[in-house]
Amino acid sequence: MEKLILHEYAPSGNCYKIRLTAAHLGLTLERRGYDILSGATRTAEFLASVNANGRIPVLQIGERFLPESGAACFHLAEGSTLIPTDPFERADMLHWMFWEQYNHEPNIATLRFWIAFVGEENLSAAQKAQIDTKRAAGEAALDLLDKHLEDRTFFVGEALSLADIALYAYTHVADEGGFDLARWPNVRSWLDRVAAQPGHIPIDA
Amino acid sequence: MEKLILHEYAPSGNCYKIRLTAAHLGLTLERRGYDILSGATRTAEFLASVNANGRIPVLQIGERFLPESGAACFHLAEGSTLIPTDPFERADMLHWMFWEQYNHEPNIATLRFWIAFVGEENLSAAQKAQIDTKRAAGEAALDLLDKHLEDRTFFVGEALSLADIALYAYTHVADEGGFDLARWPNVRSWLDRVAAQPGHIPIDA
Repeated sequence: MEKLILHEYAPSGNCYKIRLTAAHLGLTLERRGYDILSGATRTAEFLASVNANGRIPVLQIGERFLPESGAACFHLAEGSTLIPTDPFERADMLHWMFWEQYNHEPNIATLRFWIAFVGEENLSAAQKAQIDTKRAAGEAALDLLDKHLEDRTFFVGEALSLADIALYAYTHVADEGGFDLARWPNVRSWLDRVAAQPGHIPIDA
Repeated sequence: MEKLILHEYAPSGNCYKIRLTAAHLGLTLERRGYDILSGATRTAEFLASVNANGRIPVLQIGERFLPESGAACFHLAEGSTLIPTDPFERADMLHWMFWEQYNHEPNIATLRFWIAFVGEENLSAAQKAQIDTKRAAGEAALDLLDKHLEDRTFFVGEALSLADIALYAYTHVADEGGFDLARWPNVRSWLDRVAAQPGHIPIDA
């Protein structure tokens, strides 16, 4: 495989998903950090050469750039056990990855970012007005995860897949956004199982 | 393949993506409609038997249920020309599908739903407070699409893929959410190209 460079903001769960996938696969990533709080991914240079969407993560593969964490993880993991070989299970893995980006990340990750990184006192009025809605939606997302995990070891099939990696990234730091995971015991047990897998690395590695 | 049932709300672009994919593949879907405006996907029965997330679309394959339009399209299209065989292009297709669900749909599809289906006068104060932000983010998404299409026929590689289908669904009806597509001429040309493909069906078919 060509040289892999991860354009990232290290505390971002979306960036961690790619590092965690690479760690499970034994792949080495060169890391380039950007301070998103000071707008380092909105510069003309970044927009022109890394990602016109002005966001991290972006996985650079040789001279090609791949934005979106789910796409980057899928690309790294093709042909590995992190993607189920059964067609329905493979699609079901993508279901959880899309669900995470639509129902989980915009609530749980955004509240973490607003509270733990930006600071509640620095939020705009429009952001403050969304806190209650995002809190309720984040709790509903955790309810759904907890129910799904009642009788399952991992999200899809019987083994760790990209679905677990995608959901682990922001769930395991949900407390930083004010979610008390004691309310969701099946989620907590699953977090422990994911963290106990060979090849696991923490978000601050 | 087992019998395919699409649990849907017909005017939803996310549901249309699956119908359009199936049409290109020559697959027949049985359709079951739910009135999302009256809460038909939040009933105890729907949550227990179709989708615990209370949303459509859900693709039913025999006795198994697959939520999330991107996952359903991917499952239907596996092995077809709608998914590029080159690994980078396949991941790049997923990049656009994830991007659509995160940056495009929550703005362009939501404004269409609020304005053309719910009615602006029926929105909550919290929803009304988000209109300007969603308008600006939707315009930025269309700017990005227009720029990408400056020198390209389709989104990935040289042929129609699921990336085009995913992006076509809500872009071609963006005017219903108050976006005047005359501002984005490359997007308009691409919409025409997608609609001219053999196998294409309109959203109200």
